Amino acid sequence: MKTPSSLELLTESLRRLPGIGPKSAQRIAFHMLQHDRDGAAQLARALETAVNTIHHCALCNTFAEHPVCDTCLDPERDKSMLCVVETPADQLMIEQTLTFKGLYFVLMGRLSPLDGIGPKDLHLDKLISRAADGSVAEVVLATNFTNEGEATAHYLSEMLKARGLRVSRLARGVPVGGELEYVDAGTIARAMLDRRAT
Amino acid sequence: MKTPSSLELLTESLRRLPGIGPKSAQRIAFHMLQHDRDGAAQLARALETAVNTIHHCALCNTFAEHPVCDTCLDPERDKSMLCVVETPADQLMIEQTLTFKGLYFVLMGRLSPLDGIGPKDLHLDKLISRAADGSVAEVVLATNFTNEGEATAHYLSEMLKARGLRVSRLARGVPVGGELEYVDAGTIARAMLDRRAT
Repeated sequence: MKTPSSLELLTESLRRLPGIGPKSAQRIAFHMLQHDRDGAAQLARALETAVNTIHHCALCNTFAEHPVCDTCLDPERDKSMLCVVETPADQLMIEQTLTFKGLYFVLMGRLSPLDGIGPKDLHLDKLISRAADGSVAEVVLATNFTNEGEATAHYLSEMLKARGLRVSRLARGVPVGGELEYVDAGTIARAMLDRRAT
Repeated sequence: MKTPSSLELLTESLRRLPGIGPKSAQRIAFHMLQHDRDGAAQLARALETAVNTIHHCALCNTFAEHPVCDTCLDPERDKSMLCVVETPADQLMIEQTLTFKGLYFVLMGRLSPLDGIGPKDLHLDKLISRAADGSVAEVVLATNFTNEGEATAHYLSEMLKARGLRVSRLARGVPVGGELEYVDAGTIARAMLDRRAT
Protein backbone atom coordinates (compact mmCIF):
# COMPACT_ATOMS: atom_id res chain seq x y z
CA MET A 1 0.00 0.00 0.00
CA LYS A 2 1.35 3.41 -0.99
CA THR A 3 0.31 6.71 0.58
CA PRO A 4 -0.21 9.43 -2.08
CA SER A 5 3.03 11.41 -2.33
CA SER A 6 1.39 14.80 -1.79
CA LEU A 7 -0.21 13.44 1.40
CA GLU A 8 3.16 12.12 2.55
CA LEU A 9 4.81 15.47 1.84
CA LEU A 10 2.10 17.23 3.83
CA THR A 11 2.62 14.91 6.81
CA GLU A 12 6.40 15.43 6.64
CA SER A 13 5.95 19.19 6.46
CA LEU A 14 3.59 19.19 9.46
CA ARG A 15 6.25 17.31 11.46
CA ARG A 16 8.46 20.40 11.23
CA LEU A 17 6.02 22.25 13.47
CA PRO A 18 7.36 22.29 17.04
CA GLY A 19 5.71 19.72 19.30
CA ILE A 20 4.14 17.74 16.45
CA GLY A 21 5.22 14.09 16.21
CA PRO A 22 4.54 11.57 13.43
CA LYS A 23 1.14 10.43 14.78
CA SER A 24 -0.11 13.98 15.32
CA ALA A 25 1.11 15.05 11.89
CA GLN A 26 -0.84 12.22 10.27
CA ARG A 27 -3.95 12.97 12.33
CA ILE A 28 -3.79 16.67 11.43
CA ALA A 29 -3.27 15.92 7.72
CA PHE A 30 -6.23 13.52 7.63
CA HIS A 31 -8.42 15.92 9.58
CA MET A 32 -7.67 18.92 7.38
CA LEU A 33 -8.21 16.99 4.13
CA GLN A 34 -11.39 15.33 5.35
CA HIS A 35 -13.05 18.09 7.36
CA ASP A 36 -11.41 21.47 6.77
CA ARG A 37 -9.97 21.98 3.29
CA ASP A 38 -10.85 25.67 3.51
CA GLY A 39 -8.78 25.88 6.68
CA ALA A 40 -5.86 24.12 5.01
CA ALA A 41 -5.93 26.49 2.04
CA GLN A 42 -6.20 29.46 4.41
CA LEU A 43 -3.24 28.22 6.45
CA ALA A 44 -1.19 27.79 3.27
CA ARG A 45 -1.86 31.40 2.29
CA ALA A 46 -1.22 32.68 5.84
CA LEU A 47 2.14 30.88 6.04
CA GLU A 48 3.23 32.20 2.67
CA THR A 49 2.18 35.78 3.49
CA ALA A 50 3.81 35.68 6.92
CA VAL A 51 7.10 34.28 5.59
CA ASN A 52 7.17 36.99 2.93
CA THR A 53 6.10 40.00 5.00
CA ILE A 54 7.30 39.43 8.58
CA HIS A 55 10.75 40.74 9.42
CA HIS A 56 12.41 42.08 12.56
CA CYS A 57 11.82 45.62 13.81
CA ALA A 58 15.03 47.63 13.32
CA LEU A 59 14.69 49.10 16.82
CA CYS A 60 13.22 46.46 19.14
CA ASN A 61 13.93 43.29 17.11
CA THR A 62 10.36 41.93 17.43
CA PHE A 63 8.34 40.59 14.49
CA ALA A 64 7.09 43.44 12.29
CA GLU A 65 5.69 44.02 8.82
CA HIS A 66 7.35 47.41 8.48
CA PRO A 67 10.99 48.41 9.10
CA VAL A 68 10.00 49.75 12.54
CA CYS A 69 7.10 48.20 14.50
CA ASP A 70 3.97 50.01 15.66
CA THR A 71 5.03 49.94 19.31
CA CYS A 72 8.35 51.64 18.62
CA LEU A 73 6.57 54.28 16.50
CA ASP A 74 3.91 54.98 19.16
CA PRO A 75 4.45 58.60 20.36
CA GLU A 76 2.60 57.85 23.64
CA ARG A 77 5.36 55.48 24.77
CA ASP A 78 7.85 56.49 27.45
CA LYS A 79 11.18 56.47 25.61
CA SER A 80 13.19 56.57 28.84
CA MET A 81 12.24 53.00 29.81
CA LEU A 82 13.42 49.92 27.91
CA CYS A 83 12.17 46.46 28.87
CA VAL A 84 14.18 43.43 27.65
CA VAL A 85 12.16 40.23 27.09
CA GLU A 86 12.99 36.86 25.56
CA THR A 87 10.07 36.50 23.13
CA PRO A 88 7.15 38.42 21.60
CA ALA A 89 4.88 36.21 23.75
CA ASP A 90 6.57 37.53 26.91
CA GLN A 91 6.13 41.07 25.60
CA LEU A 92 2.41 40.42 25.09
CA MET A 93 2.08 39.16 28.67
CA ILE A 94 3.72 42.30 30.05
CA GLU A 95 1.52 44.48 27.83
CA GLN A 96 -1.54 42.76 29.26
CA THR A 97 -0.58 43.83 32.80
CA LEU A 98 -0.84 47.53 31.77
CA THR A 99 2.03 48.29 34.18
CA PHE A 100 4.64 49.30 31.64
CA LYS A 101 4.39 52.18 29.19
CA GLY A 102 7.97 52.20 27.93
CA LEU A 103 9.56 50.51 24.93
CA TYR A 104 10.85 46.98 24.47
CA PHE A 105 13.77 45.02 23.18
CA VAL A 106 12.97 41.43 22.20
CA LEU A 107 15.96 39.07 22.34
CA MET A 108 14.18 36.34 20.35
CA GLY A 109 15.88 33.79 22.58
CA ARG A 110 18.14 33.52 25.60
CA LEU A 111 21.75 32.68 26.27
CA SER A 112 22.01 28.91 26.22
CA PRO A 113 25.56 27.53 25.97
CA LEU A 114 24.23 23.95 25.88
CA ASP A 115 22.27 24.77 22.71
CA GLY A 116 25.18 26.75 21.31
CA ILE A 117 23.42 30.10 21.69
CA GLY A 118 25.95 32.71 22.75
CA PRO A 119 25.91 36.52 22.93
CA LYS A 120 26.54 36.84 19.18
CA ASP A 121 23.42 34.82 18.29
CA LEU A 122 21.17 37.17 20.27
CA HIS A 123 22.19 40.33 18.34
CA LEU A 124 23.26 41.99 21.57
CA ASP A 125 25.05 44.69 19.56
CA LYS A 126 21.58 45.78 18.44
CA LEU A 127 20.47 45.94 22.09
CA ILE A 128 23.54 47.97 23.08
CA SER A 129 23.08 50.54 20.33
CA ARG A 130 19.36 50.68 21.22
CA ALA A 131 19.98 51.13 24.98
CA ALA A 132 22.79 53.64 24.49
CA ASP A 133 20.87 55.93 22.15
CA GLY A 134 20.76 58.69 24.79
CA SER A 135 17.03 58.56 25.55
CA VAL A 136 16.99 55.39 27.68
CA ALA A 137 17.30 56.07 31.42
CA GLU A 138 16.52 52.57 32.75
CA VAL A 139 16.63 49.06 31.32
CA VAL A 140 14.20 46.58 32.95
CA LEU A 141 15.35 43.00 32.50
CA ALA A 142 12.29 40.76 32.11
CA THR A 143 13.84 37.50 30.92
CA ASN A 144 12.36 34.34 32.42
CA PHE A 145 13.24 33.18 35.92
CA THR A 146 14.68 29.94 34.60
CA ASN A 147 18.38 29.11 34.84
CA GLU A 148 18.99 30.31 31.31
CA GLY A 149 16.84 33.42 31.70
CA GLU A 150 18.62 34.33 34.94
CA ALA A 151 22.04 33.80 33.35
CA THR A 152 20.96 35.98 30.41
CA ALA A 153 19.77 38.72 32.80
CA HIS A 154 23.06 38.57 34.71
CA TYR A 155 25.10 38.84 31.51
CA LEU A 156 22.99 41.72 30.17
CA SER A 157 23.12 43.50 33.51
CA GLU A 158 26.93 43.46 33.57
CA MET A 159 27.12 44.47 29.94
CA LEU A 160 24.72 47.41 30.27
CA LYS A 161 25.99 48.66 33.63
CA ALA A 162 29.51 48.73 32.14
CA ARG A 163 28.09 51.32 29.74
CA GLY A 164 26.75 53.45 32.60
CA LEU A 165 23.08 52.44 32.21
CA ARG A 166 20.66 51.95 35.11
CA VAL A 167 19.48 48.33 35.08
CA SER A 168 16.66 46.66 37.02
CA ARG A 169 15.08 43.21 37.15
CA LEU A 170 11.45 42.10 37.68
CA ALA A 171 10.82 41.29 41.34
CA ARG A 172 10.92 37.69 42.47
CA GLY A 173 8.57 36.38 45.15
CA VAL A 174 5.45 34.41 45.97
CA PRO A 175 2.96 34.52 43.07
CA VAL A 176 -0.40 36.23 43.55
CA GLY A 177 -2.81 33.64 44.96
CA GLY A 178 0.14 31.50 46.03
CA GLU A 179 -0.24 29.40 49.18
CA LEU A 180 3.06 29.02 51.03
CA GLU A 181 2.39 25.33 51.63
CA TYR A 182 2.49 24.70 47.89
CA VAL A 183 5.18 27.20 46.84
CA ASP A 184 8.71 25.83 46.40
CA ALA A 185 11.31 26.62 49.02
CA GLY A 186 13.54 28.55 46.61
CA THR A 187 10.74 31.00 45.85
CA ILE A 188 9.95 31.47 49.55
CA ALA A 189 13.64 31.96 50.36
CA ARG A 190 13.84 34.64 47.67
CA ALA A 191 10.65 36.29 48.92
CA MET A 192 12.08 36.36 52.44
CA LEU A 193 15.40 37.92 51.31
CA ASP A 194 13.61 40.47 49.12
CA ARG A 195 10.91 41.26 51.73
CA ARG A 196 9.59 44.83 51.65
CA ALA A 197 8.60 47.25 54.39
CA THR A 198 4.84 47.82 54.44
CA MET B 1 0.85 47.31 21.10
CA LYS B 2 -0.38 45.79 17.86
CA THR B 3 0.60 42.39 16.50
CA PRO B 4 1.34 42.53 12.72
CA SER B 5 -1.83 41.50 10.89
CA SER B 6 -0.14 38.78 8.83
CA LEU B 7 1.22 37.28 12.06
CA GLU B 8 -2.24 37.41 13.60
CA LEU B 9 -3.76 35.72 10.54
CA LEU B 10 -1.13 32.99 10.72
CA THR B 11 -1.91 32.36 14.41
CA GLU B 12 -5.66 32.23 13.67
CA SER B 13 -5.07 29.82 10.79
CA LEU B 14 -2.93 27.54 12.93
CA ARG B 15 -5.74 27.38 15.50
CA ARG B 16 -7.86 25.55 12.91
CA LEU B 17 -5.51 22.56 13.19
CA PRO B 18 -7.06 19.93 15.46
CA GLY B 19 -5.63 19.94 18.98
CA ILE B 20 -3.92 23.34 18.64
CA GLY B 21 -5.09 25.99 21.12
CA PRO B 22 -4.30 29.73 21.15
CA LYS B 23 -1.02 29.39 23.14
CA SER B 24 0.30 26.57 20.94
CA ALA B 25 -0.69 28.45 17.77
CA GLN B 26 1.27 31.48 18.92
CA ARG B 27 4.27 29.36 19.93
CA ILE B 28 4.27 27.56 16.56
CA ALA B 29 3.97 30.83 14.60
CA PHE B 30 6.87 32.41 16.53
CA HIS B 31 9.00 29.30 16.16
CA MET B 32 8.46 28.95 12.42
CA LEU B 33 9.15 32.63 11.72
CA GLN B 34 12.20 32.74 13.97
CA HIS B 35 13.80 29.36 13.35
CA ASP B 36 12.28 27.59 10.34
CA ARG B 37 11.08 29.87 7.56
CA ASP B 38 12.02 27.23 5.00
CA GLY B 39 9.78 24.78 6.84
CA ALA B 40 6.92 27.28 6.87
CA ALA B 41 7.23 27.90 3.13
CA GLN B 42 7.43 24.14 2.51
CA LEU B 43 4.33 23.54 4.64
CA ALA B 44 2.46 26.24 2.72
CA ARG B 45 3.26 24.55 -0.59
CA ALA B 46 2.47 21.07 0.79
CA LEU B 47 -0.94 22.20 2.07
CA GLU B 48 -1.80 23.86 -1.22
CA THR B 49 -0.72 20.84 -3.27
CA ALA B 50 -2.54 18.38 -1.02
CA VAL B 51 -5.77 20.39 -1.06
CA ASN B 52 -5.63 20.56 -4.84
CA THR B 53 -4.59 16.99 -5.64
CA ILE B 54 -6.00 14.74 -2.91
CA HIS B 55 -9.47 13.32 -3.53
CA HIS B 56 -11.26 10.14 -2.52
CA CYS B 57 -10.65 6.82 -4.30
CA ALA B 58 -13.74 5.92 -6.31
CA LEU B 59 -13.57 2.34 -5.05
CA CYS B 60 -12.32 2.35 -1.46
CA ASN B 61 -12.98 5.99 -0.49
CA THR B 62 -9.48 6.58 0.95
CA PHE B 63 -7.34 9.60 0.10
CA ALA B 64 -5.90 9.31 -3.39
CA GLU B 65 -4.28 11.47 -6.05
CA HIS B 66 -5.81 9.51 -8.91
CA PRO B 67 -9.45 8.45 -9.45
CA VAL B 68 -8.61 4.98 -8.10
CA CYS B 69 -5.89 4.47 -5.46
CA ASP B 70 -2.77 2.32 -5.84
CA THR B 71 -4.04 -0.32 -3.43
CA CYS B 72 -7.28 -0.85 -5.35
CA LEU B 73 -5.31 -1.08 -8.63
CA ASP B 74 -2.78 -3.59 -7.22
CA PRO B 75 -3.28 -6.89 -9.13
CA GLU B 76 -1.64 -8.86 -6.25
CA ARG B 77 -4.54 -8.07 -3.94
CA ASP B 78 -7.12 -10.68 -3.03
CA LYS B 79 -10.35 -9.22 -4.46
CA SER B 80 -12.54 -11.64 -2.50
CA MET B 81 -11.73 -9.99 0.86
CA LEU B 82 -12.90 -6.49 1.80
CA CYS B 83 -11.82 -4.91 5.10
CA VAL B 84 -13.84 -1.95 6.41
CA VAL B 85 -11.90 0.57 8.53
CA GLU B 86 -12.74 3.97 9.97
CA THR B 87 -9.69 5.94 8.78
CA PRO B 88 -6.62 5.74 6.52
CA ALA B 89 -4.54 5.57 9.73
CA ASP B 90 -6.39 2.39 10.76
CA GLN B 91 -5.77 0.97 7.29
CA LEU B 92 -2.03 1.69 7.65
CA MET B 93 -1.97 -0.12 10.99
CA ILE B 94 -3.59 -3.21 9.47
CA GLU B 95 -1.20 -3.08 6.52
CA GLN B 96 1.72 -3.07 8.93
CA THR B 97 0.58 -6.38 10.44
CA LEU B 98 1.03 -8.08 7.02
CA THR B 99 -1.95 -10.34 7.89
CA PHE B 100 -4.38 -9.04 5.28
CA LYS B 101 -3.91 -9.16 1.53
CA GLY B 102 -7.42 -8.15 0.45
CA LEU B 103 -8.87 -4.75 -0.39
CA TYR B 104 -10.23 -2.04 1.85
CA PHE B 105 -13.13 0.32 2.27
CA VAL B 106 -12.37 3.42 4.32
CA LEU B 107 -15.44 4.95 5.99
CA MET B 108 -13.63 8.22 6.80
CA GLY B 109 -15.52 8.32 10.07
CA ARG B 110 -17.96 6.31 12.16
CA LEU B 111 -21.64 6.45 12.99
CA SER B 112 -21.99 9.01 15.75
CA PRO B 113 -25.56 10.20 16.36
CA LEU B 114 -24.35 12.64 19.05
CA ASP B 115 -22.18 14.42 16.44
CA GLY B 116 -24.96 14.21 13.85
CA ILE B 117 -23.10 11.64 11.73
CA GLY B 118 -25.62 9.15 10.36
CA PRO B 119 -25.49 6.45 7.66
CA LYS B 120 -25.89 9.04 4.90
CA ASP B 121 -22.79 10.99 5.98
CA LEU B 122 -20.59 7.90 5.69
CA HIS B 123 -21.41 7.25 2.01
CA LEU B 124 -22.62 3.74 2.87
CA ASP B 125 -24.21 3.46 -0.60
CA LYS B 126 -20.65 3.52 -1.92
CA LEU B 127 -19.73 0.68 0.45
CA ILE B 128 -22.79 -1.36 -0.58
CA SER B 129 -22.09 -1.08 -4.31
CA ARG B 130 -18.44 -1.91 -3.57
CA ALA B 131 -19.26 -4.98 -1.44
CA ALA B 132 -21.98 -6.23 -3.80
CA ASP B 133 -19.85 -6.08 -6.97
CA GLY B 134 -19.80 -9.88 -7.22
CA SER B 135 -16.13 -10.46 -6.41
CA VAL B 136 -16.30 -9.91 -2.64
CA ALA B 137 -16.78 -13.13 -0.65
CA GLU B 138 -16.21 -11.79 2.87
CA VAL B 139 -16.34 -8.39 4.53
CA VAL B 140 -14.08 -8.00 7.59
CA LEU B 141 -15.30 -5.23 9.89
CA ALA B 142 -12.29 -3.52 11.48
CA THR B 143 -13.87 -0.43 12.99
CA ASN B 144 -12.57 0.55 16.43
CA PHE B 145 -13.68 -1.27 19.57
CA THR B 146 -15.14 1.91 21.01
CA ASN B 147 -18.87 2.39 21.57
CA GLU B 148 -19.24 4.22 18.29
CA GLY B 149 -17.03 1.80 16.37
CA GLU B 150 -18.96 -1.18 17.75
CA ALA B 151 -22.29 0.43 16.88
CA THR B 152 -21.00 1.14 13.37
CA ALA B 153 -19.86 -2.49 13.00
CA HIS B 154 -23.26 -3.74 14.17
CA TYR B 155 -25.10 -1.48 11.72
CA LEU B 156 -22.83 -2.47 8.81
CA SER B 157 -23.11 -6.15 9.71
CA GLU B 158 -26.92 -6.08 9.56
CA MET B 159 -26.87 -4.06 6.36
CA LEU B 160 -24.39 -6.34 4.56
CA LYS B 161 -25.83 -9.63 5.80
CA ALA B 162 -29.25 -8.50 4.53
CA ARG B 163 -27.62 -8.47 1.09
CA GLY B 164 -26.39 -12.04 1.51
CA LEU B 165 -22.73 -11.18 2.21
CA ARG B 166 -20.49 -13.04 4.66
CA VAL B 167 -19.41 -10.64 7.39
CA SER B 168 -16.74 -11.03 10.10
CA ARG B 169 -15.28 -8.86 12.84
CA LEU B 170 -11.72 -8.57 14.22
CA ALA B 171 -11.31 -10.77 17.31
CA ARG B 172 -11.54 -9.21 20.75
CA GLY B 173 -9.36 -10.38 23.62
CA VAL B 174 -6.36 -9.74 25.81
CA PRO B 175 -3.71 -7.69 23.96
CA VAL B 176 -0.34 -9.26 23.20
CA GLY B 177 1.90 -8.65 26.22
CA GLY B 178 -1.16 -7.93 28.37
CA GLU B 179 -1.00 -8.90 32.02
CA LEU B 180 -4.39 -9.98 33.33
CA GLU B 181 -3.90 -7.93 36.50
CA TYR B 182 -3.84 -4.74 34.45
CA VAL B 183 -6.36 -5.60 31.75
CA ASP B 184 -9.90 -4.28 32.25
CA ALA B 185 -12.61 -6.74 33.26
CA GLY B 186 -14.64 -6.19 30.07
CA THR B 187 -11.74 -7.33 27.92
CA ILE B 188 -11.11 -10.40 30.08
CA ALA B 189 -14.83 -11.27 30.03
CA ARG B 190 -14.79 -11.06 26.24
CA ALA B 191 -11.61 -13.14 26.04
CA MET B 192 -13.23 -15.78 28.26
CA LEU B 193 -16.42 -15.96 26.16
CA ASP B 194 -14.43 -16.07 22.90
CA ARG B 195 -11.85 -18.56 24.24
CA ARG B 196 -10.40 -20.92 21.62
CA ALA B 197 -9.44 -24.59 21.74
CA THR B 198 -5.66 -25.08 21.63
